[in-house]
Amino acid sequence: MSQTERAALAAFMRGDKFAARLGIELLEMRPGYARAALTVEPHMVNGHNLPHGGAIFTLADFAFAVACNAHGRTAVALSMDIHFLSVAAVGEKLIAEAAEENLSRRTGLYRMTVTTEAGQKIAELHGMAYRKKTPLMADGKTLTRIK
Amino acid sequence: MSQTERAALAAFMRGDKFAARLGIELLEMRPGYARAALTVEPHMVNGHNLPHGGAIFTLADFAFAVACNAHGRTAVALSMDIHFLSVAAVGEKLIAEAAEENLSRRTGLYRMTVTTEAGQKIAELHGMAYRKKTPLMADGKTLTRIK
Amino acid sequence: MSQTERAALAAFMRGDKFAARLGIELLEMRPGYARAALTVEPHMVNGHNLPHGGAIFTLADFAFAVACNAHGRTAVALSMDIHFLSVAAVGEKLIAEAAEENLSRRTGLYRMTVTTEAGQKIAELHGMAYRKKTPLMADGKTLTRIK
Amino acid sequence: MSQTERAALAAFMRGDKFAARLGIELLEMRPGYARAALTVEPHMVNGHNLPHGGAIFTLADFAFAVACNAHGRTAVALSMDIHFLSVAAVGEKLIAEAAEENLSRRTGLYRMTVTTEAGQKIAELHGMAYRKKTPLMADGKTLTRIK
Repeated sequence: MSQTERAALAAFMRGDKFAARLGIELLEMRPGYARAALTVEPHMVNGHNLPHGGAIFTLADFAFAVACNAHGRTAVALSMDIHFLSVAAVGEKLIAEAAEENLSRRTGLYRMTVTTEAGQKIAELHGMAYRKKTPLMADGKTLTRIK
Repeated sequence: MSQTERAALAAFMRGDKFAARLGIELLEMRPGYARAALTVEPHMVNGHNLPHGGAIFTLADFAFAVACNAHGRTAVALSMDIHFLSVAAVGEKLIAEAAEENLSRRTGLYRMTVTTEAGQKIAELHGMAYRKKTPLMADGKTLTRIK
Repeated sequence: MSQTERAALAAFMRGDKFAARLGIELLEMRPGYARAALTVEPHMVNGHNLPHGGAIFTLADFAFAVACNAHGRTAVALSMDIHFLSVAAVGEKLIAEAAEENLSRRTGLYRMTVTTEAGQKIAELHGMAYRKKTPLMADGKTLTRIK
Repeated sequence: MSQTERAALAAFMRGDKFAARLGIELLEMRPGYARAALTVEPHMVNGHNLPHGGAIFTLADFAFAVACNAHGRTAVALSMDIHFLSVAAVGEKLIAEAAEENLSRRTGLYRMTVTTEAGQKIAELHGMAYRKKTPLMADGKTLTRIK
């Protein structure tokens, strides 16, 4: 990554206000890879009093977004699928890892796993990204999902 | 729905603290169907300054959970897939509709669409629910995803 | 559709030798929409002696391919998901319907439903297509999935 | 696996007439894991003259079915998603590997990768199986997808 790309990526991550609001923290990143953490707060539960699928998805989505945008080109999600495997406890710290399975000129496929710190599998996802021709953060507010 | 079922469902929806925190409101519900709304607040954006996929997913997930649990039996999500179709503006109100496509003894398939108030399609999802034998809210805190 | 587009589409459908081998027949088509049928032959079963998921998928995939290529531009599948809902009998005729849920410059989302002639729901799918810039059938044998 | 389980699994695989018809061969198997191969014959192409998505799916589905039924309990697919990554040539031998990502009392999640013999990634899938209480092949022809 060039200096410019690093700055764009830092701005991209800072700009993710929803992840920041949930307390998601980035643990590690490089082009095509990211790892992030979220501690399940008591207000992040669903009606069954279990960690909310939306919070788990958001954590994985953040790792996905960092991994695919870390190539320095604007990438947006086309599709994601999530499989819920077991249930974490409220208060636990969840770790999402995003790894690139494939990268072509216009798309990228990423696999995300969400586990507890103890290694229990909570969810597994696939995410397909569309890669625009524009450098990351060059679009500003005019970005649409697929130009 | 019986009186008991209605009370359990009301408790279930009240218990969804993550949805409440985001300001998600239920517009309509019956067994197998639900409609809910979320206004995209400025803090619900991703690094591209667009409505966060995690917020859109959470809205759809809430409608899904209400629709499948409204049968009065505890239902949990096995899998969901989301396809992002276009981009809403920050400040817009999004509407998610969950409709039952299929119901068998142990599973249910639901389709969710997320649109703006003006009818622009933002996302489309499928959700597969696993239906436990226990009545809704009978499990309390011992609920695991699939017993 | 122009004369040229019609001819390209006819060549495209004739060229689908796998669908032809299974006996899949096209019932109806227009840009963004298609309906096709497959009778489940005794050799199209899986180890449980049920209609094979692969045969059901192929039927839906054919309807999807026709619907998205009928716009006259080369379209290839990026992702598909299939949800199996109930079980057809061997010998039954299955109908797949593909309908466009969304179309943007570069992608299209289609929903496919597979039912028996009596209307029993067998499977439901989503398919995301990538739309190339080249007209249908202009690529010949040099086509790659996403150029 | 007991002697009985081995016999049931052999019968299960022999019974997959659709896989046999396509020439799919099993390369390796154990509970939770399977590897199978398919050579793309000239009649297995789609309208773009590329290996048909339905044939690729069927190969992965076969590996998935063997892997999850090899536990000795009847398992049926609930959902599968497939992501197409690159394009193989007609005549190439494709290898599908199915590996168990998670196993609970009632469900199992499997990940399938389809590659060429040279290791090029062609497709990646997730499959969610529902595990019935009955031993494999005990149901005979009365099997329904989810009892």
